[in-house]
Amino acid sequence: MVSLNLLAVGKEIIELMRELYPICRSITGNGYRETMQIMKKHIPLEIREIPSGTRVFDWIVPKEWNIRDAYIKNMNGDKIVDFQKSNLHVLNYSIPINTRITFAELKEHLHTLPENKNWIPYRTSYYKENWGFCITHRQLESMEDIEYEVSIDSSLEDGHLTYGEFFIKGELEDEFLISCHCCHPSLCNDNLSGMALASELAKHLYNQRKLRYSYRFLFIPGTIGSIVWLSLNERTVHKIKHGLVIACVGDPGIMHYKKTRRGDAEIDKVVVHMLSHSGQNYKILEFSPYGYDERQYSSPGFDLPVGSLTRSPHGSFPEYHTSADNLDFIKEESLGDSFLKYIEVIQIIENNRKYINTNPKGEPQLGKRGLYDAFGGRKDSGTYELSLLWVLNFSDGKNSLLDIAERSGINFKIINEAANALFDCGLLVASE
Amino acid sequence: MVSLNLLAVGKEIIELMRELYPICRSITGNGYRETMQIMKKHIPLEIREIPSGTRVFDWIVPKEWNIRDAYIKNMNGDKIVDFQKSNLHVLNYSIPINTRITFAELKEHLHTLPENKNWIPYRTSYYKENWGFCITHRQLESMEDIEYEVSIDSSLEDGHLTYGEFFIKGELEDEFLISCHCCHPSLCNDNLSGMALASELAKHLYNQRKLRYSYRFLFIPGTIGSIVWLSLNERTVHKIKHGLVIACVGDPGIMHYKKTRRGDAEIDKVVVHMLSHSGQNYKILEFSPYGYDERQYSSPGFDLPVGSLTRSPHGSFPEYHTSADNLDFIKEESLGDSFLKYIEVIQIIENNRKYINTNPKGEPQLGKRGLYDAFGGRKDSGTYELSLLWVLNFSDGKNSLLDIAERSGINFKIINEAANALFDCGLLVASE
Amino acid sequence: MVSLNLLAVGKEIIELMRELYPICRSITGNGYRETMQIMKKHIPLEIREIPSGTRVFDWIVPKEWNIRDAYIKNMNGDKIVDFQKSNLHVLNYSIPINTRITFAELKEHLHTLPENKNWIPYRTSYYKENWGFCITHRQLESMEDIEYEVSIDSSLEDGHLTYGEFFIKGELEDEFLISCHCCHPSLCNDNLSGMALASELAKHLYNQRKLRYSYRFLFIPGTIGSIVWLSLNERTVHKIKHGLVIACVGDPGIMHYKKTRRGDAEIDKVVVHMLSHSGQNYKILEFSPYGYDERQYSSPGFDLPVGSLTRSPHGSFPEYHTSADNLDFIKEESLGDSFLKYIEVIQIIENNRKYINTNPKGEPQLGKRGLYDAFGGRKDSGTYELSLLWVLNFSDGKNSLLDIAERSGINFKIINEAANALFDCGLLVASE
Repeated sequence: MVSLNLLAVGKEIIELMRELYPICRSITGNGYRETMQIMKKHIPLEIREIPSGTRVFDWIVPKEWNIRDAYIKNMNGDKIVDFQKSNLHVLNYSIPINTRITFAELKEHLHTLPENKNWIPYRTSYYKENWGFCITHRQLESMEDIEYEVSIDSSLEDGHLTYGEFFIKGELEDEFLISCHCCHPSLCNDNLSGMALASELAKHLYNQRKLRYSYRFLFIPGTIGSIVWLSLNERTVHKIKHGLVIACVGDPGIMHYKKTRRGDAEIDKVVVHMLSHSGQNYKILEFSPYGYDERQYSSPGFDLPVGSLTRSPHGSFPEYHTSADNLDFIKEESLGDSFLKYIEVIQIIENNRKYINTNPKGEPQLGKRGLYDAFGGRKDSGTYELSLLWVLNFSDGKNSLLDIAERSGINFKIINEAANALFDCGLLVASE
Repeated sequence: MVSLNLLAVGKEIIELMRELYPICRSITGNGYRETMQIMKKHIPLEIREIPSGTRVFDWIVPKEWNIRDAYIKNMNGDKIVDFQKSNLHVLNYSIPINTRITFAELKEHLHTLPENKNWIPYRTSYYKENWGFCITHRQLESMEDIEYEVSIDSSLEDGHLTYGEFFIKGELEDEFLISCHCCHPSLCNDNLSGMALASELAKHLYNQRKLRYSYRFLFIPGTIGSIVWLSLNERTVHKIKHGLVIACVGDPGIMHYKKTRRGDAEIDKVVVHMLSHSGQNYKILEFSPYGYDERQYSSPGFDLPVGSLTRSPHGSFPEYHTSADNLDFIKEESLGDSFLKYIEVIQIIENNRKYINTNPKGEPQLGKRGLYDAFGGRKDSGTYELSLLWVLNFSDGKNSLLDIAERSGINFKIINEAANALFDCGLLVASE
Repeated sequence: MVSLNLLAVGKEIIELMRELYPICRSITGNGYRETMQIMKKHIPLEIREIPSGTRVFDWIVPKEWNIRDAYIKNMNGDKIVDFQKSNLHVLNYSIPINTRITFAELKEHLHTLPENKNWIPYRTSYYKENWGFCITHRQLESMEDIEYEVSIDSSLEDGHLTYGEFFIKGELEDEFLISCHCCHPSLCNDNLSGMALASELAKHLYNQRKLRYSYRFLFIPGTIGSIVWLSLNERTVHKIKHGLVIACVGDPGIMHYKKTRRGDAEIDKVVVHMLSHSGQNYKILEFSPYGYDERQYSSPGFDLPVGSLTRSPHGSFPEYHTSADNLDFIKEESLGDSFLKYIEVIQIIENNRKYINTNPKGEPQLGKRGLYDAFGGRKDSGTYELSLLWVLNFSDGKNSLLDIAERSGINFKIINEAANALFDCGLLVASE
């Protein structure tokens, strides 16, 4: 593949994040729609709308939520909490309200973070009708035991759930699924970073001349979105051979890979190999049924091989689901590096084949084909020459190039190069 | 199961031990018979008698041994060694003798422990006719080179081998075997502790309203007893699905579990899980064909899944098979704690089932069933909510609740609670 | 087997090395022939000759190389480099040359070791026609920018490739292959040590009254020799059930075992067991397709279970492939110890059988057969008594004696002794 200017890629990703940051998204509504329209300027996304009330397995598509404004005013008419300053101030999916209320009553509807007094928490109430405000603990502390005016100018009515889908056809029917949740309001790492990186990745793959796998990108609201998509595509999901859920790819932390439910899927081996040769620290997490939409793809009725490649995982950083998960928390270098990791995973998946050695009895004579040093007797053989021997010895139709890379401890890139050279001089043929 | 007063249980166990302590037991004889009669006051034991000379596989039931008195007298007629003071003084299974003898000759028949000069060793000679005395090394050192009068008023004659058996019928024909050897004279940890704990456990299970498995308790003489029992029950031993040999459960040491010959039987997984969640130190030992009656149950012709759950294992403590393995060596807390461990193992075995998720496509909506917090966005989910997700995701008919507990790292008790809640609202059905 | 005087064995091996040391060997030619004739005085070797030009899989048997003399003379006619002083001075397989040449031109044909200025490197050019000299870096530094006379009195003509083969028929058709490369000129550890140890081993086995396996010894030139042999014996190589490549067995380093391609062949388990009970340090290396002739035996078209047991592996010691790999580098104790290791491997392979316990239900009564201590109650049982129990319990037709030795942690020798005792009293029969 082409060489990449990772800093430029990082800048491009952050530009898109900056554009999407102010919008108040939720699992349905105009904020989501507007977000998809902006993304469509970058990649030819299909935007789908599913009516409220549609049955999707055990769930029902909820009413559509929209919000225009919200505030809390004190006796003087000063807005002490203002949705226009941060869309996190409203409990996401709050029903409309406009009333005077005592402090005691109001307190039941206030959410704060005592451990980080200047941060606004992000809270939702999608499936139980309620209203509320999320404020800093400092704001709470400065409030007096007086009457307040609260106003939430929202609506919760029959409408639609919106999501985006983008498909790139490759040589194979087999698909690589990339999924990200797009339902969070002004929160950057979780998950504007994932949305923007997925968009950049889609653009990059769309520009490739040739892809072996087909690639499917989903820009969906969390939980209900993947359940909707699985429900609508139940008959074709078996085509998904590999998948990754993208989230939290902009923070300065190390890479984390959460394995698929199967634990030994090809995507698991590929990501672990890539990370182990990255020269960076990283951490492998076993599958658990808690997290992002891999939960749904991995439900026992589907059991799709979908892992999740992130930097700091959900819930593991203090800024998680607070107003501190803002643009300052995001590093261009992290975005560029995360992008590279996804590209490297795809490069391995695209090239990971099984070959058969056409000359399996004894080693073939590599010297006469110009593949081996003419002088004998030296102490070491170079990694490339070793790679040729590894590929020849283990290309018996049972081992993939990745298996050989793992067994030899040699980077897949070099093993793949060696396989290409051997293929070119007829010492390998593709298996099957 | 009911909550337990472990200290009360410990006291009850030690009471029974105290009652049984003075009796001189062996692998046959009246001491064994008396012991079974006392135990029968606690549980409705069947007492069986097998005639001397009966062929049992490669062995023959030995003659019955009984002893009334024994001593060594010096020239003054003083009893310098007296069976009435400790029944360990006689080599167990000594033939009768009554004679005057030189010190040189007598020494050939004396057993001592030079490394613990005040302790009497426990020695036996079941299968080779012999006589002897076991004395403290101090006693030996104070003896002079004079003539002695030795007397052992014993008999070794055709009679019976006695053992006790207690069966509790559960819903299933499948059995859980609990076996303990009862052939030792005044020795406490090995194995009055095991006998008394087994009795308490039998009483506890007998009082349960409902048991899934059937439970079989064997109170047998070591080696020959299990061989006799296997020989008499050869056609039905296949019903034994789990088994534990109880011994050495009263000392202050940590728990030890010796695995079954198979090494991966359900009982192995259950005990390891229980111990790993006990918050205590413990040690897992691989199977070896040396030890207690698990040797016989695990012989290759049977290969029954029988492990052994003890505190300090046989031979590992200095007091082992000496007069120092007395009532002072036993702790009520240890007995209570050992009892709890057995109960916990049984609770897991009783509840370890496989379920099938009735809503396997995507997660079911737990919130509408009151099983999940209505507010979204928080950093952590509680262990119980996680348990619901684990049970749902892995209840595919392949994983037992214990498999799920192990994979999730969550205590079986919580996983089981979660499964019960899901079962109650129809989200799980039993597999098969 | 007989007890061995290892120091005497070490001396015998080093004597043969001393006799073979001066000869200039290569992959073909009279040096190789002479070497085989000398070895034939020790063991009744078959010497085979394969014509140049013979097709062997992907290779062609090369022309035969012979050399009589070679030197570099300065302007004064002084021989500054002289083949008669060390046969390493000539690039092995150099074509003949006799000319005057500038220093600049000559330098293109000189090989040195800048990191060890007093050592001559060993270099070859078997498959690309070339000429050259290998000299010390000191020699290079003392050369001036003048004209030199270079002379290599060699020939490269159609002839034969020579190798030696020695077969000892055992009870079974199944073979144990021992292979060593004999193509190096005056280099001791690699591989006069391997050649001489193989010869000593062959002699030792030839003198045994009874062997279960048949043993095949190959004394071949590296790479091309094993390819030739595989090509000529393609239809019968399946008889090879175990194999070892011998090399580098005289240096003072610790033992290294490189596993077979399969990684879990019987030979792998045997060598690992032997080393783990040796009381010495050792190292186990995973298979790699680089090294000695195990590369060819392990090519995917054959995949023979051939490992390699050496002291310091190829390329791992500074003296490797230099004039410093001379007789001073070799230790008699190392040779004796290496010999013992091979003997112990063979002893395990010869005795590693599966038995069936004829009394599988419960333990048989060992006491009545005199195999077990008559007194009961002691803390420990001896290793030999434990071995009896291990062999009885696991002789179910599935476990070999080596499996039992590994599971019990007891040395194979003691397990084998126990099995023999049980076999003698009818408690075991051979499986199959």
